[in-house]
Amino acid sequence: MRTLQNITLITTEHGFSLTYQDRQILRHSPDAPCLWAGAGEADIEMFRGNFSIKDKLNEKIALTGAEISESTDGWRVHFSRGDAVRATLHIGADDSGRLTLRLQNDNSRHNRLWLQLAAKPEDHIYGCGEQFSYFDLRGKPFPLWTSEQGVGRNKQSHVTWLADCKENAGGDYYWTFFPQPTFVSTQKYYCHVDNSGYMNFDFSAPDYHELAFWEDNATIRFECAPSYIELLEKLTALLGRQPELPDWIYDGVTLGIQGGTEVCQQKLDVMRRGGVKVNGIWAQDWSGIRMTSFGKRVMWNWKWNQELYPQLDTRIQQWKREGVQFLSYINPYVASDRDLCEEAAARGYLTKDAQGQDYHVEFGEFYAGVVDLTNPEAYAWYKDVIKKQLIELGCGGWMADFGEYLPTDTHLHNGVSAEIMHNAWPALWAKCNYEALQETGKLGEVLFFMRAGYTGSQKYSTMMWAGDQNVDWSLDDGLASVVPAALSLAMSGHGLHHSDIGGYTTLFDMKRSKELLLRWCDFSAFTPMMRTHEGNRPGDNWQFDGDAETIAHFARMTTIFTTLKPYIRQAVAQNASSGLPVMRPLFLHYEHEPRAYSLKYQYLFGRDLLVAPVYEEGRHDWTLWLPEDSWINVWTGEACGGGDVTVDAPLGKPPVFYRAQSEWASLFATLRHI
Amino acid sequence: MRTLQNITLITTEHGFSLTYQDRQILRHSPDAPCLWAGAGEADIEMFRGNFSIKDKLNEKIALTGAEISESTDGWRVHFSRGDAVRATLHIGADDSGRLTLRLQNDNSRHNRLWLQLAAKPEDHIYGCGEQFSYFDLRGKPFPLWTSEQGVGRNKQSHVTWLADCKENAGGDYYWTFFPQPTFVSTQKYYCHVDNSGYMNFDFSAPDYHELAFWEDNATIRFECAPSYIELLEKLTALLGRQPELPDWIYDGVTLGIQGGTEVCQQKLDVMRRGGVKVNGIWAQDWSGIRMTSFGKRVMWNWKWNQELYPQLDTRIQQWKREGVQFLSYINPYVASDRDLCEEAAARGYLTKDAQGQDYHVEFGEFYAGVVDLTNPEAYAWYKDVIKKQLIELGCGGWMADFGEYLPTDTHLHNGVSAEIMHNAWPALWAKCNYEALQETGKLGEVLFFMRAGYTGSQKYSTMMWAGDQNVDWSLDDGLASVVPAALSLAMSGHGLHHSDIGGYTTLFDMKRSKELLLRWCDFSAFTPMMRTHEGNRPGDNWQFDGDAETIAHFARMTTIFTTLKPYIRQAVAQNASSGLPVMRPLFLHYEHEPRAYSLKYQYLFGRDLLVAPVYEEGRHDWTLWLPEDSWINVWTGEACGGGDVTVDAPLGKPPVFYRAQSEWASLFATLRHI
Repeated sequence: MRTLQNITLITTEHGFSLTYQDRQILRHSPDAPCLWAGAGEADIEMFRGNFSIKDKLNEKIALTGAEISESTDGWRVHFSRGDAVRATLHIGADDSGRLTLRLQNDNSRHNRLWLQLAAKPEDHIYGCGEQFSYFDLRGKPFPLWTSEQGVGRNKQSHVTWLADCKENAGGDYYWTFFPQPTFVSTQKYYCHVDNSGYMNFDFSAPDYHELAFWEDNATIRFECAPSYIELLEKLTALLGRQPELPDWIYDGVTLGIQGGTEVCQQKLDVMRRGGVKVNGIWAQDWSGIRMTSFGKRVMWNWKWNQELYPQLDTRIQQWKREGVQFLSYINPYVASDRDLCEEAAARGYLTKDAQGQDYHVEFGEFYAGVVDLTNPEAYAWYKDVIKKQLIELGCGGWMADFGEYLPTDTHLHNGVSAEIMHNAWPALWAKCNYEALQETGKLGEVLFFMRAGYTGSQKYSTMMWAGDQNVDWSLDDGLASVVPAALSLAMSGHGLHHSDIGGYTTLFDMKRSKELLLRWCDFSAFTPMMRTHEGNRPGDNWQFDGDAETIAHFARMTTIFTTLKPYIRQAVAQNASSGLPVMRPLFLHYEHEPRAYSLKYQYLFGRDLLVAPVYEEGRHDWTLWLPEDSWINVWTGEACGGGDVTVDAPLGKPPVFYRAQSEWASLFATLRHI
Repeated sequence: MRTLQNITLITTEHGFSLTYQDRQILRHSPDAPCLWAGAGEADIEMFRGNFSIKDKLNEKIALTGAEISESTDGWRVHFSRGDAVRATLHIGADDSGRLTLRLQNDNSRHNRLWLQLAAKPEDHIYGCGEQFSYFDLRGKPFPLWTSEQGVGRNKQSHVTWLADCKENAGGDYYWTFFPQPTFVSTQKYYCHVDNSGYMNFDFSAPDYHELAFWEDNATIRFECAPSYIELLEKLTALLGRQPELPDWIYDGVTLGIQGGTEVCQQKLDVMRRGGVKVNGIWAQDWSGIRMTSFGKRVMWNWKWNQELYPQLDTRIQQWKREGVQFLSYINPYVASDRDLCEEAAARGYLTKDAQGQDYHVEFGEFYAGVVDLTNPEAYAWYKDVIKKQLIELGCGGWMADFGEYLPTDTHLHNGVSAEIMHNAWPALWAKCNYEALQETGKLGEVLFFMRAGYTGSQKYSTMMWAGDQNVDWSLDDGLASVVPAALSLAMSGHGLHHSDIGGYTTLFDMKRSKELLLRWCDFSAFTPMMRTHEGNRPGDNWQFDGDAETIAHFARMTTIFTTLKPYIRQAVAQNASSGLPVMRPLFLHYEHEPRAYSLKYQYLFGRDLLVAPVYEEGRHDWTLWLPEDSWINVWTGEACGGGDVTVDAPLGKPPVFYRAQSEWASLFATLRHI
């Protein structure tokens, strides 16, 4: 036994046990080894961001032998299986004292590793990026691969089946735009893997977690803390934190509008006349449209389209004076038939195919080139596109869409396999946007928001949104799914999350109802950003200006949101300074309550508001659980202790409680009079 | 290089090549090994015959080393991976000169083997038992496990999705009642594996076939022949052949009727009055019924129910005198709440659970015990039940249903794991029925028919039927699927096949149309047995006595069938003597025609009739392909050479051609006048 920086290695005759701050991390014996090496041939097919991923497994070999030697900073474990196979594990601490495991296959043909971490049956697990179906990840495997999130995401749902039949697009519980090889255990440690290849974290077994890597090496870091809040502080010290949001974010709703300058003006006027607090117009078609058989699509040529948006430059300034930002749209692809792509191609900035020709991805009746963000010149050029076309125009922000579609058979400037770069791409895309803000001094003034993410997005993505929910009530892909998404992302180190009010995906006879739009509006008033989306088939969906009642509803809920401005701003500041997320799992503040660890559809908004969104159709009341504390119902003023409570939950009064002891209690008390 | 009984082993420095009658069977080098050993933990769940089968793979190790030594009857190859893992391959010939490979894992923890057989890209593969979706198996894996065949069997079909949601019952392309580890390659060899554990034969790769075994040993036999007909003769010499059919089979249709003696009499009278040739009544409810919320079920207590079937004993004799057999029903389970089960339990004849208690399987609101056919006393007792309750009553035959439901966690008298016995069970069940006939001298007079099968069913199952098709037009689970089923079974050594006229499965809004019933009747007139089924929801289905037109249709088609009696009898006799199946793939007689290898929905019925059943709704004509020969359209008398032809295909005139040179040409010429 030897201890180094809180790391203890106990050797037995043929095995060992590794503990870190009293948590057992690894245990190994020839009968129950902790490491496997092997080889596989990945078979990855992409169609419009939907991936079929298979592995033709050629080998998987248990490394039963383990020979330990000391090194300057820790230990070296030489794993082997007889004289046939070897791999090495370096155990040590990084510069910040984190336990660091570095695995390396010693066989050049081996490109797979499986590591089993010691676990206890009672452990709960959170994180792995943005998980829409599960919050506690124990009991299931979670493949980690950035992709479309799927339409339906549950093989038992009819919509999923239809989407699967159409283009393998139905998805499953683990499909996500933002996966991340990071998790928090209720043993109060986090585990983070530096790699970016395909991984599968399997939390199914009672006594171990199996981490599978489609690479020949892996670096894994651990840190412990006495509380989850301190643990998140440490995790975000490693991964980075988001800056504070621009102040205008708290001043109302950002209206998703399309159709040109005058449509934006008219809708803005209607809403303002109706008393709605509007802080922005988000117009994704600012660069023009392309007609396809699917319907209108945005023209992927990132320049102001003066035909569709005449006088936009001056109007942006006028709106800004009125407290309304103009937000636009960009993604990391350039339409093959337009001039930006032509320029990128001429400069050699697009990713290549096996023959060295420009790679063009099919996006549905049009193609687009992939700007090679691993090429420093291409990266700088695209950053300049953002600066010149979006920032100089005066945009207050934009949706930085996509990032999940890097094909695995494209060739990159940095020479790294696209299979390894695929997951890393969204963070690289975030960094490009972030630096455009940073270098123009616009951080904290201009905001971009992303759906795709990976390790690095904590630092570089200024705001996440939940991507493309169905305009329905389904648990796995509707309103409900946004809550576990925000909470799992919070446990992965990203604390700023919001969603399209009303959802987006309008296919297969789904149509957004008025009730759904209003419930989503209610929920979004208790998130750090309110923003609407028309959906992909606006004509099928109830919209914010659908009738006077809807407008009045938005007026009231945006007033509630803006009333909370100082409170939300404080929570956002905490996130920026210490990584304490804005939407928080209950157990962050109620560690001793067992129920707090299993609830995925309610959360704390900041320290003092407990929110339980209504995510079922036709409900008039709602049952939620309150941890032991002194609570006050925001809408009735009634006081409540802990336990299950059932409350009236009409439209416009989502179940929300505040803490009686809150320093903000008097502010909260005003809400019932709005 | 050494040659022994046509087996040649050429050794290279680190590998070898094994050929058999000039076919390369194995090739091995350290870089491209042919054998893997490993370990897995099977996770097999059954619900009503639908299986979820997963393997937690702990190891899969390429055995790169191969050391060869000579043995008295061939060679011994010691495979290894360094000093860590070993397995042995014995290469030799069996008593009949077949190439025999015997594999044995030398590590007691290893329970998985993967063997790669050499293949050529152009090889086609047939067999693997009864395959409903594919006839040429190249390009796909085929897991081999006897089970329900699935409802829909295609993840793109709505019925499959509904069945999957309900009870994981939708199935997939490889689900079958009758799998078998036997295939025929177009290199003109067959390969047969003696084992019965779970296997997966994967024909996806261009240059090898991978056979995966969930056992620690395997015995694999090969034989070659200059023609497919001789190859099937050799294969059936190994596996056994079916005896000839009772003569009465050719005398008309067997009517599936339920409801009691008088219902049978009435329906028989109606059909006979309508001119229908009837050779039998098949009444599955002869032992009584049980009401469940699902509907009427057969009472699984295998005794004549005198309440529902009064005077059955005398009526059987009367019908027999009129040329009408009475057929009943049995399966290998006994209802837990009835006296046969009580008797079996008292004698200790049921399979056990882990605690040594009788194992009862849930069948949908009732339970049944599993008669332990590995216990010689239980086996003899159940054979006696068949003799006393069915044969002595005077039954002309019965459906010997089920056989696929042996749970993998039950405990058997012979001490062999139920996981290994699961696939073997249907053949054991067939043998029990067969011996009951043999020992009472009834073989060739009484006929039982089965849906479940495995190696051994060739010898012991006197007739197969295709199981439970949907009452629809789907390719994977409707009328069409019966043809590849018959042909793949033919290539696996079983040459007698028929199906429920009209299909069976009536769920999820499927209802049998009149058109479907009549098309299926047309098809069945060109199979060795005509038998109807009411379906599981008779009230939803068009029935044989649905209207006068339907009765007249059956009258005409049964007349066609009975007219063919001498021809069919000859084909059946060929099957009994040489294993040449009654329904034949075209390439058996047209080896030089490339198209003959890819057609799965047309077949030769005997040597001289080519049949292409209409399996689409609303069709008036049909296009089929004829190999180069002189063909005559049965219904028009028109002569035709080879190639694609389109013919009129009204109801009652399925596309059928006969060979002008046939010795039966004058008999065939009479058909157009019926």
